[in-house]
Amino acid sequence: MTSDPAELIEQTVAAVRAADPAARQAAADRLDRMTKPRGSLGRLEDLAIRLAGIAGTCPPPLLEPATVAVFAADHGVHAQGVTPWPQEVTAQMVANILGGGAVVNAFASQLGVDVVVVVDVGVAAALDPAPGLLRRRVAAGTADMTQVPAMTRAQAEQALVVGVQTAGELVAGGARCLLTGDMGIANTTASAALICVFTGADPAEATGRGTGVDDAMLAHKIDVVRAALARHRPDPADPLATLAAVGGFEHAALAGLVLGAAAHRTPVLLDGVIAGSAALAAAVICPAVIDACLAGHRSAEPGHRIALRHLGLEPLLDLGMRLGEGTGGLLALPLAQAAARALHDVATFDSAGVSEKG
Amino acid sequence: MTSDPAELIEQTVAAVRAADPAARQAAADRLDRMTKPRGSLGRLEDLAIRLAGIAGTCPPPLLEPATVAVFAADHGVHAQGVTPWPQEVTAQMVANILGGGAVVNAFASQLGVDVVVVVDVGVAAALDPAPGLLRRRVAAGTADMTQVPAMTRAQAEQALVVGVQTAGELVAGGARCLLTGDMGIANTTASAALICVFTGADPAEATGRGTGVDDAMLAHKIDVVRAALARHRPDPADPLATLAAVGGFEHAALAGLVLGAAAHRTPVLLDGVIAGSAALAAAVICPAVIDACLAGHRSAEPGHRIALRHLGLEPLLDLGMRLGEGTGGLLALPLAQAAARALHDVATFDSAGVSEKG
Repeated sequence: MTSDPAELIEQTVAAVRAADPAARQAAADRLDRMTKPRGSLGRLEDLAIRLAGIAGTCPPPLLEPATVAVFAADHGVHAQGVTPWPQEVTAQMVANILGGGAVVNAFASQLGVDVVVVVDVGVAAALDPAPGLLRRRVAAGTADMTQVPAMTRAQAEQALVVGVQTAGELVAGGARCLLTGDMGIANTTASAALICVFTGADPAEATGRGTGVDDAMLAHKIDVVRAALARHRPDPADPLATLAAVGGFEHAALAGLVLGAAAHRTPVLLDGVIAGSAALAAAVICPAVIDACLAGHRSAEPGHRIALRHLGLEPLLDLGMRLGEGTGGLLALPLAQAAARALHDVATFDSAGVSEKG
Repeated sequence: MTSDPAELIEQTVAAVRAADPAARQAAADRLDRMTKPRGSLGRLEDLAIRLAGIAGTCPPPLLEPATVAVFAADHGVHAQGVTPWPQEVTAQMVANILGGGAVVNAFASQLGVDVVVVVDVGVAAALDPAPGLLRRRVAAGTADMTQVPAMTRAQAEQALVVGVQTAGELVAGGARCLLTGDMGIANTTASAALICVFTGADPAEATGRGTGVDDAMLAHKIDVVRAALARHRPDPADPLATLAAVGGFEHAALAGLVLGAAAHRTPVLLDGVIAGSAALAAAVICPAVIDACLAGHRSAEPGHRIALRHLGLEPLLDLGMRLGEGTGGLLALPLAQAAARALHDVATFDSAGVSEKG
């Protein structure tokens, strides 16, 4: 592998394959022979077919082990007062995750996901080394997008490469499904801006309450997104420039994770609005990566719905969650695993001696 | 415990307690102190509170181990041509489940549910003894509800008691969550009839395609439900009489399972339309049982939506499934387990040293 970022991204994109039609067909055929009424598993059948298409084989691998990669970073736009939470909470929550005390840890441990890694791609505070922490910081937080570009193009590229490399390392380590996680106070502001650029949505539609802002702060947050877009006028056809102008380091890294996962034919389970906005960038870089994506949960953030519609992804869960960390993707993992398992284990009408519909 | 069925039902009802308000409040308080924005787990928070209320303690038990109880029976109304599947499929699918080849087995094994029991409460064909099969048959299938009552009142009571006793045995054996399962060709016809009686819905609204009937057969199925209701005019205030007139043995047994689970303060995860129609009967016998119920999945059957609305239950999943067997409830189990786990494991702002919202 090259050490040149642009070349690495190019090689990764070149390795991405669209869903395998033969494997998809084999899964569809198998589903129709299984001892159940045709189509009776509803969206689980689409999911099983999708997993076969990603893997290029039927039955697809069982998505075990799965790994959550939580990309953590801070945001210069925090200075604009877009959230009631102090910026220090990013580093505190990273410590909480590394200590096993966050919701993502509880869900992961309940769902049999042994590995939750935190990738420091740009937390403002210096973080001590710790097991489970990958230190890949690009800078101590982005710059304030309302004043200057959030990052340079080179920084955006560097963060993207962090994601690509993280995917490669996790898959090399045995992961058969990657789950996106994120932690970064003010990151829903950057997500809203990215969604506006890539989908053409208005800031008033795409900007939400994040972790819980009041009406006045929401109105201000919308103005902040609008001001940043007016200042930079990012070109949606240039995803690196867009990420640099109004994105976050975790958004760029998550876009890289999606690219890397797709290049390794490994499904990537997207969490909420942060991952959704990052996937929009990845899909401009390489449209076929969407075939490798599963949407876990529809966030309460309005921009997420817009992003998913644009990506053509329908989330598996809709539970009104708006936490991030990877929690929504995690809760959908058992559904994906069950869909894959069904293709492995369920008997056919022939093999089980069950009569077919008259 | 008494051996008189009516007395056993009465004792079971007397043991049911409504959700514990102190435990619910303790869970709500704990959720607000956890290291996450308030309310950010959406419906998972309601679920966690509900589980605490059922158990009467916070944190509630972790719902492990969970057991699926598949109640199997045949239906005399099959003779009216309400399904394209031959009646022998009920017994064949029971054998398939006992052999581990059905979708319910694949899902259970994937989700860490080691026990799937099949309760023969009235399969038409004689079943050989097998590990995992509880032989509790009331009769070799119900009678044709369009001609005579599907069963006698004594049979309905007997089937209900089978469910109550099954719940008691499974909880005594260690189960901390019961999942409803069902297998019975033509059982969506009985479900539709029950839903019409208990909710006042019209057969045209409540009757669906079940395992996949065509337009002509659906129209006929609606007529069959309408004819049965016209013949018996069941009184919704008399749930045993209603079950006897137009129900199935598995419906009566599932109503008993719900009663029994509630009496043991054990959550019961409802699958689809069969369980939903049975829960309607249980809720007339004892309204407080609904506090112990979780709705797993919204079936594609239209009657299920009507039943859930009447019960005041919102399903956790909506994946367009219409298989039964317990598959929809199973897929929701990880959500309930994750909600309970969060109350056990997640750090508070104080304990983790995380700053609160400004």
